[in-house]
Amino acid sequence: MPFQNLVRLSVDSPVHTICVLGMEIHVDINGCAPKDCTSFTIRGTARVLIDVSGAVITGKEDASISQSLPGPPHVLLRMLSPSLSEDGDKAGSRGDLGNLKPVALLPALHAFCALSPQVLVSYFFPNEDVPAATALLYLTGIEVSLEADIYRDGQLEVPSDRIAKKKWVWGPSGWGAILLVNHNLVDLGQLTDSEVKGILSEEISTLAHMTLIVQGPDSTLKNYGLVLHTSEEEAKRVRVYWPMRIQSMFKLVLGPSQHAHAVSSLRSVEKTLYVAAIDFPSSSFSGLVSFSVSLVEQPQESGIPETPIYKDTIVFRVAPCIFTPSTQMPLEVYLCRELQLQGFASSVTELSEKTNVPVASVYEDPARLGKWLQDEMAFCYSQAPHKTTSLVIDSPRIAKLEEYPMKYSLSPDVSYMTHATEDHRVASLDSVGNLMVSPPVKAQGKDYPLGRILIGSSFYPSATSRSMGQSLRSFLYAQQVQAPLDLFSDWLMSGHLSEFMGFVPVENGSKDTKDFRLLLASPRACYQLFQKKQMEGYGNATLFEEVRPDQLLSNGREAKTINQLLADENLRKQNDYVEKCLHLNRTLLKRELGLEEKDIVDIPQLFYLEKLTNVPPDQQTAKLFAKPYFPDLLQMMVMGKNLGIPKPFGPQVEGACCLEEEVCRLLEPLGLQCTFIGDFDCYLTDIGDFCACANIRRVPFAFKWWKMVIP
Amino acid sequence: MPFQNLVRLSVDSPVHTICVLGMEIHVDINGCAPKDCTSFTIRGTARVLIDVSGAVITGKEDASISQSLPGPPHVLLRMLSPSLSEDGDKAGSRGDLGNLKPVALLPALHAFCALSPQVLVSYFFPNEDVPAATALLYLTGIEVSLEADIYRDGQLEVPSDRIAKKKWVWGPSGWGAILLVNHNLVDLGQLTDSEVKGILSEEISTLAHMTLIVQGPDSTLKNYGLVLHTSEEEAKRVRVYWPMRIQSMFKLVLGPSQHAHAVSSLRSVEKTLYVAAIDFPSSSFSGLVSFSVSLVEQPQESGIPETPIYKDTIVFRVAPCIFTPSTQMPLEVYLCRELQLQGFASSVTELSEKTNVPVASVYEDPARLGKWLQDEMAFCYSQAPHKTTSLVIDSPRIAKLEEYPMKYSLSPDVSYMTHATEDHRVASLDSVGNLMVSPPVKAQGKDYPLGRILIGSSFYPSATSRSMGQSLRSFLYAQQVQAPLDLFSDWLMSGHLSEFMGFVPVENGSKDTKDFRLLLASPRACYQLFQKKQMEGYGNATLFEEVRPDQLLSNGREAKTINQLLADENLRKQNDYVEKCLHLNRTLLKRELGLEEKDIVDIPQLFYLEKLTNVPPDQQTAKLFAKPYFPDLLQMMVMGKNLGIPKPFGPQVEGACCLEEEVCRLLEPLGLQCTFIGDFDCYLTDIGDFCACANIRRVPFAFKWWKMVIP
Repeated sequence: MPFQNLVRLSVDSPVHTICVLGMEIHVDINGCAPKDCTSFTIRGTARVLIDVSGAVITGKEDASISQSLPGPPHVLLRMLSPSLSEDGDKAGSRGDLGNLKPVALLPALHAFCALSPQVLVSYFFPNEDVPAATALLYLTGIEVSLEADIYRDGQLEVPSDRIAKKKWVWGPSGWGAILLVNHNLVDLGQLTDSEVKGILSEEISTLAHMTLIVQGPDSTLKNYGLVLHTSEEEAKRVRVYWPMRIQSMFKLVLGPSQHAHAVSSLRSVEKTLYVAAIDFPSSSFSGLVSFSVSLVEQPQESGIPETPIYKDTIVFRVAPCIFTPSTQMPLEVYLCRELQLQGFASSVTELSEKTNVPVASVYEDPARLGKWLQDEMAFCYSQAPHKTTSLVIDSPRIAKLEEYPMKYSLSPDVSYMTHATEDHRVASLDSVGNLMVSPPVKAQGKDYPLGRILIGSSFYPSATSRSMGQSLRSFLYAQQVQAPLDLFSDWLMSGHLSEFMGFVPVENGSKDTKDFRLLLASPRACYQLFQKKQMEGYGNATLFEEVRPDQLLSNGREAKTINQLLADENLRKQNDYVEKCLHLNRTLLKRELGLEEKDIVDIPQLFYLEKLTNVPPDQQTAKLFAKPYFPDLLQMMVMGKNLGIPKPFGPQVEGACCLEEEVCRLLEPLGLQCTFIGDFDCYLTDIGDFCACANIRRVPFAFKWWKMVIP
Repeated sequence: MPFQNLVRLSVDSPVHTICVLGMEIHVDINGCAPKDCTSFTIRGTARVLIDVSGAVITGKEDASISQSLPGPPHVLLRMLSPSLSEDGDKAGSRGDLGNLKPVALLPALHAFCALSPQVLVSYFFPNEDVPAATALLYLTGIEVSLEADIYRDGQLEVPSDRIAKKKWVWGPSGWGAILLVNHNLVDLGQLTDSEVKGILSEEISTLAHMTLIVQGPDSTLKNYGLVLHTSEEEAKRVRVYWPMRIQSMFKLVLGPSQHAHAVSSLRSVEKTLYVAAIDFPSSSFSGLVSFSVSLVEQPQESGIPETPIYKDTIVFRVAPCIFTPSTQMPLEVYLCRELQLQGFASSVTELSEKTNVPVASVYEDPARLGKWLQDEMAFCYSQAPHKTTSLVIDSPRIAKLEEYPMKYSLSPDVSYMTHATEDHRVASLDSVGNLMVSPPVKAQGKDYPLGRILIGSSFYPSATSRSMGQSLRSFLYAQQVQAPLDLFSDWLMSGHLSEFMGFVPVENGSKDTKDFRLLLASPRACYQLFQKKQMEGYGNATLFEEVRPDQLLSNGREAKTINQLLADENLRKQNDYVEKCLHLNRTLLKRELGLEEKDIVDIPQLFYLEKLTNVPPDQQTAKLFAKPYFPDLLQMMVMGKNLGIPKPFGPQVEGACCLEEEVCRLLEPLGLQCTFIGDFDCYLTDIGDFCACANIRRVPFAFKWWKMVIP
């Protein structure tokens, strides 16, 4: 029984046709109308929808449509569920029914309406109630569909709206299925099916389910084929696995080198396929991937090509990569251990124990420059209703490094991904270390429930300006959910925002205060503090008094009194410049994160200017860059309410460091605990000049990214 | 006078500072408050906005804010318009004012408030009305901005919302400036400024204006520099020209190889720059380009880097390329003239005269295959509030063709652009000829006021399937305003939609009918017509009776009677297959364009199946493809209500072609005039087998694309 899209009825014998769920059949009811008949009535059994020029009935009740002849050129039919056998279960009764008189036919029609979908057209002479003739149409319903968790509740429902799944809609009342990137599967492209087997079984929980449903009588289906497909472009971004009959064997059916998979001689089936993404969204990939299944009629005659009949399509979006702000609770601390950092390492370990956060160790990689852990790495997560995954993105400045110790130090549930950088200079800003995330904010009428990504960059291009490369930058923008914002950090030698700003969580005091504070470095606050101490008679208190002379020497610093520091006109001019750079960022942050002055805490910090150090001669410029003058109080490790803060070794006033006291005075009323970590070299080593030897993996946001309203 | 972001007041002498419009200044009012003063009052002159912890006044009225001391750490100031001279026009009176007693000072302050923006802070002892001391702050306002026609009305206004121009918003109440692609300027990258001069003067009307405004006292501005910039990526998509002092000389300041242009020693200026886009939006280019101007303070001290102070940014969107449906009125007909097509050419010329449309001739290009004009070309337009431009996109199947006669046959206001194809096979679908545009429609709750682009493609991938290449496809999607839709055309040898469908304009009869009809080829309608004629006794009427035997022979056709055609079982099976392919498209078109059966007219047309002809052996497949059996009635030239229809040479019944009669019966009641063009070879030549030797440039839509609501 081949598929017919235009069915001609007959009053002589019943007509049989196939109807694919989701498609319309056109029925010509005029062609077989007896001469002189002037009206017709059409009715159908359950599961059949009848549309006569816009008047619609379904066979649920005893509904019918009557119209005068000639009727419209076509009556449209649709089926609402598939058949169990050809023409329904009682195929044998066809002939009988066809010969029944129409009035007698009706009860019989109802008797098996649930099993055998039919349509009955009666033709009438003028002013007569008994039909002059009757045409009967038997339908065999076939269903072919792809289904997934489009309502994002971890369930697979077949939605009533068959077209909904072709769209992907953001927001709290949105819908659309979600895929996760699986980096553990990325390298498996070359493996044979059996080699994939074991690995896939481990990863199965991260894979999205896509269910292929084929329903209908097998005797009908055997004449049809099916093609599962996507576009060549999209196929490069995903892998679809088909479970084999042998337990836990999987066959790769769609992937980078194959965008179609054909199945011939169909039979009824409901099969769960497993889908993983290869890539996160990027400038060349929107993140949307659609899969289709096409029903194809095999040629019944030689010389006639196979005929596509119907296509069902479902769209997935690849879950974005989401970065977490320091205000999220820590899950795990990664520490780069080397001998010279033992003091730092043990302090952080202590702090972690206080916060109940495990510490993993990463041994220094001789091939990488200095303390790369915070500089070139970022932890992030990705989320689907069925699973949340953690990963670390590594953007090494050294191009040809293939194996990194980090990869082997990760917790088993954290996967690893590299992002190639374009700028391989030592002082490059082209790195995932060069970003920070704000807590959730509202600004200029917009909600940012997952915060905003803050990128350190130059304010304007110039001969000496540095910036994040286009590839990494567009990757961050393509994730869509954490609207990136450029800040001005090129005035710093490291170029990293974390040298002058940070976010800490605070107890939400009242309705109009936020549950975080922005900490900003402030030379002005430092000068004010030192002036106050000078006025109080502590002008001879000395910065770096506690530091060993050899440590000072190797870090290019001298112990200096408050009087000396305040009298240093050059240092003051340099800090005036830094203050302007900070002010520019303050203005941007207030406007773009919707912050007010009361949301900002000024942390005393001095800077000084210097030429780029420890870079090859060809990367040298005449421009001076800022470095923290004493260990950078902003470079803190935020672990909930516990802050691990670089010990500044500031002037001792009445037995206490006046910088530490000031920081405590500012932060402790907000419910924060300050622990000062006293490893001078860790902060002022001439390799990195900042605390880049720790990185914290944090708790994902409670807010689900797909509930965001994306313009 | 350097820029200060934090200003400390003094009660001893007035303080002077610069204020950039759009930036905040922080003022410390506590620092100079006399001991034992318990309150302060702050007021300012016009043009100054004062914000004390959220309480805001502007100096327009005699407003002031009084608070107890210590006040908030900072009071925020903003300026609303620039200054004409340092500290205002009456700079000389500063000293006097500073020494005046505060009560006496107020009238003096008001006297020149319009010229000299100032802020006055008075400090009070408890329970006293007369201030104990007064601090005076003089402000010099500087404005730096980029402006353009962001409200899309052809006017340049400086909007009250300074941040609005950083966004580009679609829709009737949207805003954002618009750029046009100028292909005539694309090749000028290598020319010197003076060579560009003449060409630019001709093109100036298509270029968008961007006005650079710098205002403030020149004595202040001279210490500042300015950088006009965009990102490296965006610079590849645009060119910005700076008019020189010598009349009609222009300097290229931003473009593919330069993304920043620096100006030192500023002075007040209001300069119009000219901006053109190089590329239309594409998969790698969103179409948005932002330009910024950064104000940079030149270093006042050696060793201090230059300091960015302020940045103003404006966003442009590159106008998309818009295709027109056949329901738009024709402007110009391009005809490919060769000797064998003379009959066709003169018929079209006659028809054009009837419709008052000029005809341009393009001579056959020996390097191109067959009649490439409609096959590989598409006319389109682009639009900005200031100008509408026409262009033709050429997607030649031959890769190395560099000069095309088409380019030199174009009307002077039509520009020319090539779009490289990926698939260079003869029967490729990778061409702009393989698209059609629908009239404006509404479907599934969405408005498509510029219609939808319909792309001919294969329904599913298979060994023999052909499709439009990714590059052209993503180009069409990237234009955003004509949401493309794939139709199934791979069953046709040509693969082109125009062989089985078309749109014609009709008079809008009533509210619930559309002002166009979709014409669909229908083998069934043709069989019904022939059956009717057979029943009427015309079974011996002959198709192709009028065609010369040698023409039939060279086109592989035979004259056949209606009886013979109806008896040809093979032909009927082939047309059953075609009917299914058509039905699939009918279903898609109804759903995706929101059409009903009454919007569709079935045009009788037979097809037959054949192997790909006239292609090299390596492009041959076993699959059979459909070709029109007689000249294709759907391949009509729509010129308003006048239709130029291929003469089908159908069976003659009572002295008239029954196919022509049927087409007239269907279309004339809709207000359409049918002219049958009788050049048999033109339609059935074995090179192209379709009418591809004419192409029509049409009137742009009245609807402006930027008023669309894009999700």
